[in-house]
Amino acid sequence: MATWTVYLSGEIHTDWRERIERGAADAGLDVAFSSPVTDHAASDDCGAAILGAQDRKFWHDHLGAGVNAIRTRTLLERADVVVVRFGEQYRQWNAAFDAGQAAALGKPLITLHPPEHDHALKEVDRAALAVAREPEQVVAILRYVVDGRLP
Amino acid sequence: MATWTVYLSGEIHTDWRERIERGAADAGLDVAFSSPVTDHAASDDCGAAILGAQDRKFWHDHLGAGVNAIRTRTLLERADVVVVRFGEQYRQWNAAFDAGQAAALGKPLITLHPPEHDHALKEVDRAALAVAREPEQVVAILRYVVDGRLP
Amino acid sequence: MATWTVYLSGEIHTDWRERIERGAADAGLDVAFSSPVTDHAASDDCGAAILGAQDRKFWHDHLGAGVNAIRTRTLLERADVVVVRFGEQYRQWNAAFDAGQAAALGKPLITLHPPEHDHALKEVDRAALAVAREPEQVVAILRYVVDGRLP
Amino acid sequence: MATWTVYLSGEIHTDWRERIERGAADAGLDVAFSSPVTDHAASDDCGAAILGAQDRKFWHDHLGAGVNAIRTRTLLERADVVVVRFGEQYRQWNAAFDAGQAAALGKPLITLHPPEHDHALKEVDRAALAVAREPEQVVAILRYVVDGRLP
Amino acid sequence: MATWTVYLSGEIHTDWRERIERGAADAGLDVAFSSPVTDHAASDDCGAAILGAQDRKFWHDHLGAGVNAIRTRTLLERADVVVVRFGEQYRQWNAAFDAGQAAALGKPLITLHPPEHDHALKEVDRAALAVAREPEQVVAILRYVVDGRLP
Amino acid sequence: MATWTVYLSGEIHTDWRERIERGAADAGLDVAFSSPVTDHAASDDCGAAILGAQDRKFWHDHLGAGVNAIRTRTLLERADVVVVRFGEQYRQWNAAFDAGQAAALGKPLITLHPPEHDHALKEVDRAALAVAREPEQVVAILRYVVDGRLP
Amino acid sequence: MATWTVYLSGEIHTDWRERIERGAADAGLDVAFSSPVTDHAASDDCGAAILGAQDRKFWHDHLGAGVNAIRTRTLLERADVVVVRFGEQYRQWNAAFDAGQAAALGKPLITLHPPEHDHALKEVDRAALAVAREPEQVVAILRYVVDGRLP
Amino acid sequence: MATWTVYLSGEIHTDWRERIERGAADAGLDVAFSSPVTDHAASDDCGAAILGAQDRKFWHDHLGAGVNAIRTRTLLERADVVVVRFGEQYRQWNAAFDAGQAAALGKPLITLHPPEHDHALKEVDRAALAVAREPEQVVAILRYVVDGRLP
Repeated sequence: MATWTVYLSGEIHTDWRERIERGAADAGLDVAFSSPVTDHAASDDCGAAILGAQDRKFWHDHLGAGVNAIRTRTLLERADVVVVRFGEQYRQWNAAFDAGQAAALGKPLITLHPPEHDHALKEVDRAALAVAREPEQVVAILRYVVDGRLP
Repeated sequence: MATWTVYLSGEIHTDWRERIERGAADAGLDVAFSSPVTDHAASDDCGAAILGAQDRKFWHDHLGAGVNAIRTRTLLERADVVVVRFGEQYRQWNAAFDAGQAAALGKPLITLHPPEHDHALKEVDRAALAVAREPEQVVAILRYVVDGRLP
Repeated sequence: MATWTVYLSGEIHTDWRERIERGAADAGLDVAFSSPVTDHAASDDCGAAILGAQDRKFWHDHLGAGVNAIRTRTLLERADVVVVRFGEQYRQWNAAFDAGQAAALGKPLITLHPPEHDHALKEVDRAALAVAREPEQVVAILRYVVDGRLP
Repeated sequence: MATWTVYLSGEIHTDWRERIERGAADAGLDVAFSSPVTDHAASDDCGAAILGAQDRKFWHDHLGAGVNAIRTRTLLERADVVVVRFGEQYRQWNAAFDAGQAAALGKPLITLHPPEHDHALKEVDRAALAVAREPEQVVAILRYVVDGRLP
Repeated sequence: MATWTVYLSGEIHTDWRERIERGAADAGLDVAFSSPVTDHAASDDCGAAILGAQDRKFWHDHLGAGVNAIRTRTLLERADVVVVRFGEQYRQWNAAFDAGQAAALGKPLITLHPPEHDHALKEVDRAALAVAREPEQVVAILRYVVDGRLP
Repeated sequence: MATWTVYLSGEIHTDWRERIERGAADAGLDVAFSSPVTDHAASDDCGAAILGAQDRKFWHDHLGAGVNAIRTRTLLERADVVVVRFGEQYRQWNAAFDAGQAAALGKPLITLHPPEHDHALKEVDRAALAVAREPEQVVAILRYVVDGRLP
Repeated sequence: MATWTVYLSGEIHTDWRERIERGAADAGLDVAFSSPVTDHAASDDCGAAILGAQDRKFWHDHLGAGVNAIRTRTLLERADVVVVRFGEQYRQWNAAFDAGQAAALGKPLITLHPPEHDHALKEVDRAALAVAREPEQVVAILRYVVDGRLP
Repeated sequence: MATWTVYLSGEIHTDWRERIERGAADAGLDVAFSSPVTDHAASDDCGAAILGAQDRKFWHDHLGAGVNAIRTRTLLERADVVVVRFGEQYRQWNAAFDAGQAAALGKPLITLHPPEHDHALKEVDRAALAVAREPEQVVAILRYVVDGRLP
């Protein structure tokens, strides 16, 4: 069976991606992970750094969001499965935006967030095929989905 | 020219929809507006009220989100233009989720939010064709787009 | 808002379609219903009756299924919402087949069946946005979805 | 010519998958097979085992069907050819549901079932490009389709 | 139910279109028919007559085929059902070409031809949902499909 | 037959649109025309006028192009046929951009331009189904395509 | 650059495929060719040989066309470029049918036929990006398209 | 992560492609570049050279544009990212045409042109995710997008 491609979208301030990647590696799964650029400063400044400084913050952000979208849109379309993580902090509208794109593209979607966001995320969760609380549950899902093995 | 259909997604606690609809009517525009159910209580409880009460809040929400999605997904797909409003309060992930769906479906997208959310919404705004601050600007866009008239 | 089109697929031996259509009419909903030909004998024999008798039952059925598919595939694609009913009897694989088509086409799906089929229908139900037990619940969903009113 | 990918959907209680896979291997065909998880207990319980036990059987099944769909939807979309087996027992609505998805996605479809189900499966068979009775016939079709050789 | 649109493609030297249209009218069916321009001379010369005479017959035909395609491609895409007629004479590759387009677009296809062409048309017929011999059979199919009535 | 919708894209400094619309009206054709906003000043300034003045001309243009795209993308997608006019002056990259979108969307395309641009437009013309020199030829094409009448 | 995949559809009684494949090999092109099964007897009988003999020739052909379509539809969808050959004999409606499918799928199409068929094939040729007379011209096109070299 | 494919469309008279390819190689990026045939004479004459000389320049160009489109349409569809360069000279409508196709196909688009064309290119730039002035900026974007590294 061909390699599975999994896009890890959303929150960038905790180690959830590493925990999933390490778990999948430990389980020997044939999965390739992709993600947005997770260096917060680089992600914010990439547009202006490459294309030129802007007087207004709005256009600074606009340039950066454009450059990041070249990466994220491509990786999202290539993915077999999309995992979207909502963390404790920040509004993370881009995570919900990615989830909306994934849903409209028909990608199997897994959300990952603590129960206190359940009500606010009910529309996103409804479009997901699984709602996980911990990265290890995502690993367990991938192990089952890819290899048919339960914990 | 045929009627334009505009879907008004997002925040439900202020009168922005009424201001847009009234403005469009005053301008004599041939526009039909649609929106999610904006009665907050009905929107939260519709699933359980129709399909049966649930012990767990998660499933209560899940049922409701499913019933609401029958409406919102249909109206989103029918729309020529999608307007998504992010308000001052709440996380409004469903608004960003709708924006992501609209983007992936290739729908012209207008966002409506105050400047303090600019940075957090930069990915969503980058996918939009216009970022408005006031409902009256949305009316002005629609008047221009539909009738070719500037204010 | 434009008329909603709802396709009523599945079981043809009880009055569930009439109950939904009557309920929607009583509620004054702007909904147009469509369905396969529900005259069982006509549905079985339409192919051979029009295109010629066959020696083998397999080809008799094949002709009939082709003619019926001209109708059902067209109505399914036109529908905004698809309701699929699984009854107490028969295998009703064509109902599940319609549900699979609806899911792949991204149509909002409502299933309607008694609880004893829950386990056997879990994959179909998972792809649905609502699982109803009684036709009146489907009417209530449509009333909410079309008009935003709860019972 | 590139490897052909064939998804084997449906009944999981007999050895039909093994017979097809062995036959294809014996014929030296360049075919990669995929299938849902065929361990019945794991398939039923994967959702609750990973995501948490549920009080109600309906939600237990719902969780499991979601996790399984991550696998089956991905493999179905990747497949060049879809084979759907209907066995002697059980209602197998998920098999018909997969067939409906395959048909809507334009995948070449082969059904595999005994003649006593012909009438009940006439809509599914009409959408198929071949109706086989024995796994060995599926092997013969694949040998012809992939290598151009007849038995 | 909305009007059905039926595109009548193929042979232009007999009265088969009139027979189908008259039959549908006599049966009171809510069907709108469309077809290519059936004036043979106009169809051949439209390109050169409008866009300029050509020295070479190849480019004369090329211009004409372009102008006709503006009509035929549009009507084919609008159609709910496509009927393709193969007559006794001529090679009628354009009819088979239209059938190929209809098949790839997922349009329900009805072929209409005498049995002597069965072998040569087997690939086209396999993609059709019905193979009729007489225009009156097409009318009977439409009556059944649109109104659920058998002869 | 339903109304034909024709989008008139491109050059805005001569009366070619009026000549086509008048010609179609004189011929009694059931055609509805649409076009971008052809008031040059309004088209350039609509973004800044509605959404706020910008220091840099680049962002002034960017805002305007966004607002115009809400109109043009919608009308292009609705069109049955797209006519793109390249005039004697200016670079008119937006006309070629519209033609590229029309081609990728599978819309029947008619180009309208003088022979001196033939070489520079060869890629665009190759994707078109007709290359006209005068607006009256476009009218003649529409009359033939819609009504089957030659001049 | 990745390998180009070219599907060679149509006439099976002359050596045109071999001439193209040999020419491409001699030119060192990175092209993989695919084609329908070109053994005429096998192609006619594959359905009945595998799935069972039929009393009527129509169903014998129907079975065979179904099995062949599993191969041809898959290869057509995988192809980057489709070449369709129309020979001196037979009606070859299946070649025109394949061309129609290729056109609707947006595949670059090359037709290959002698000038005496130009008028009858004008609709098919109009949808093609090149009309060749000899297999060596197809090789020259592929050499240019793949490697940028002219003869 | 898999190789990124980048299509370099547009102007063929300066060394911008070499500068991008060299910069990507120096940065060690896993990117495969593709482009139209950039030999101007070959590109103009390929059609007539292979398929036969034409009396009229229009058809000479038409043949050439067809053969080139076999290459360009295929490479455009395969690309993850499309870069379109507008130079100082010529009208370069084919560059804008490619940009239009890329936009309609949902491909991330980067434009590359000097500021003096900003106003004329505003519609194309609005559809782009980045507007670069120098080839080295495109390299910097690709380095960030592919590897997450800023200069």
